Amino acid sequence: MDSYITSLLEPLRAGDPRSLARAISIVENRAPGSSDLLKALFPYSGRARVLGLTGSPGAGKSTLVDQLAKHYRKQLQTVGIIAVDPSSPYTGGAILGDRIRMQDHYSDPGIYIRSMATRGSLGGLARTTADVATVMDASGRDIVMIETVGVGQDEVDIVRLADVTIVILVPGMGDDVQTIKAGIMEIADIFVINKSDHEGAERVEREVRTMQSLAMRSDHWTPPIVKTVASDGTGVAELAAAIVQYETYLQKEDLARQRNLHNWQERLIEMLRDAMLDRARQHMGDGERYAADIVEHKRDPYSVVEEIIAGLGKPR
Amino acid sequence: MDSYITSLLEPLRAGDPRSLARAISIVENRAPGSSDLLKALFPYSGRARVLGLTGSPGAGKSTLVDQLAKHYRKQLQTVGIIAVDPSSPYTGGAILGDRIRMQDHYSDPGIYIRSMATRGSLGGLARTTADVATVMDASGRDIVMIETVGVGQDEVDIVRLADVTIVILVPGMGDDVQTIKAGIMEIADIFVINKSDHEGAERVEREVRTMQSLAMRSDHWTPPIVKTVASDGTGVAELAAAIVQYETYLQKEDLARQRNLHNWQERLIEMLRDAMLDRARQHMGDGERYAADIVEHKRDPYSVVEEIIAGLGKPR
Repeated sequence: MDSYITSLLEPLRAGDPRSLARAISIVENRAPGSSDLLKALFPYSGRARVLGLTGSPGAGKSTLVDQLAKHYRKQLQTVGIIAVDPSSPYTGGAILGDRIRMQDHYSDPGIYIRSMATRGSLGGLARTTADVATVMDASGRDIVMIETVGVGQDEVDIVRLADVTIVILVPGMGDDVQTIKAGIMEIADIFVINKSDHEGAERVEREVRTMQSLAMRSDHWTPPIVKTVASDGTGVAELAAAIVQYETYLQKEDLARQRNLHNWQERLIEMLRDAMLDRARQHMGDGERYAADIVEHKRDPYSVVEEIIAGLGKPR
Repeated sequence: MDSYITSLLEPLRAGDPRSLARAISIVENRAPGSSDLLKALFPYSGRARVLGLTGSPGAGKSTLVDQLAKHYRKQLQTVGIIAVDPSSPYTGGAILGDRIRMQDHYSDPGIYIRSMATRGSLGGLARTTADVATVMDASGRDIVMIETVGVGQDEVDIVRLADVTIVILVPGMGDDVQTIKAGIMEIADIFVINKSDHEGAERVEREVRTMQSLAMRSDHWTPPIVKTVASDGTGVAELAAAIVQYETYLQKEDLARQRNLHNWQERLIEMLRDAMLDRARQHMGDGERYAADIVEHKRDPYSVVEEIIAGLGKPR
């Protein structure tokens, strides 16, 4: 193992934020040594409670996550936050967001916030987020919160990494609530109706109840609905209690291990897919020669793919 | 080749809607013979103009697509529509949507609509959509329109398949416009501001202009902004004209081939990844044994993945 990587391990495990930041950057960029680092840290992971929080833009995710973080800090637990932020070359949102939020917690090393951009991750975002969570976990953070905008498959994949998944709804989003329903609603272990002092909170609650009455989860858990006003902290203690309640349920029913197993089966597939993609790229190069044959209709892409795969076992 | 597959080819190429429907189902479900069918059809593809249309829920995509379809039908061109619809077990949206929309065009075999659900596709949705588009193309449809909700990486991948990408915005979406900006705005060849009779249309236009002033596309094309009111057909002819204008630009600058090449390079990578993932899944089985080792911290997942990949070349 690279000596720089080795030198990071001890301070990182002792909770040093600068080592943590460096380790995350290595993992996020898949820099050299990233795989060694993860292998070395993995045995120390699995102790943190990983919470996934998702909701539409404007649902107040960040505020709620910050309030939860404060709640856990009062209980002397350390917190790591991963904010997965769909950014674009035009907005640079991830970096900006980091800076603004860091100011709030600057004086408390017990809270570490890291933003991650969607851009450029090419489908590997869920994997990278999982790896970053592993690093935070191994660094001794008691709670790791993963916060995403709940809109696409990426987000569903990310949130599935968590031990507990919290879906944040807000009144008056109209079509948005419908959008987030698709794919995300099913994975909620706990629903939060944030901004619950706004008009329409009851309607959202009724909608969730109706949806719940249509289908029973395979684990027979009925996700509770917690009403919050994140901006003034209302309901945050109740949310924390609901989280404990679900964890207790998982333990009692021996579902925690089952969920963990299932998550790892999924994650292994994703890791394999990413690794396969790397390998495919290596074998294919930029693929321009193949693509040119296809564009000119000299060959069909299905046969090309079969040919490349047949060649994978052979030396290049 | 399976005789059933062979028997589909001729009526399909002659434009028979029932054969088209059957062929699409085979491809969509990756049923036996799917690969043979695609290989046989590929040489006849590449003639349709493929339009990708994307926008937030509520932006009026379906209405606009339907209006465009009517426009092309007046020019005696045949149309295939692929509506990629994030559905959920609760809504069954894709199927319902299909039925409602089919009624409208029931009497016209020159318009064929097919809805596809996001659910269960596990990252392969872009590939399946591409394959379905190939089938429609080979069936002789002049225009193939692919319609998606513009929210996630899946959608970006799907829209990239198109010869021309149209991003549909609407006034008064607030945060939503910001959301769709992330990742989707960059790929627009043409912007549509639909519901342009609503308040705020000018603001959306200004925002797009501002964004455009910040970065120049590598092909030096400045995407035009077309204002429409899809519900009454306003601006649809202008949109069709903008599409022709962009296609002419592509031809003149010899960019069409370049774009095609690039798209096929990307698509080959995705096809390879999917095929290799299938292979990895075969080797891994359900992965429960590996996952159990990981949950019990007997092994780390990074080494497990390396081991599986190393074993791929070897006979099982």
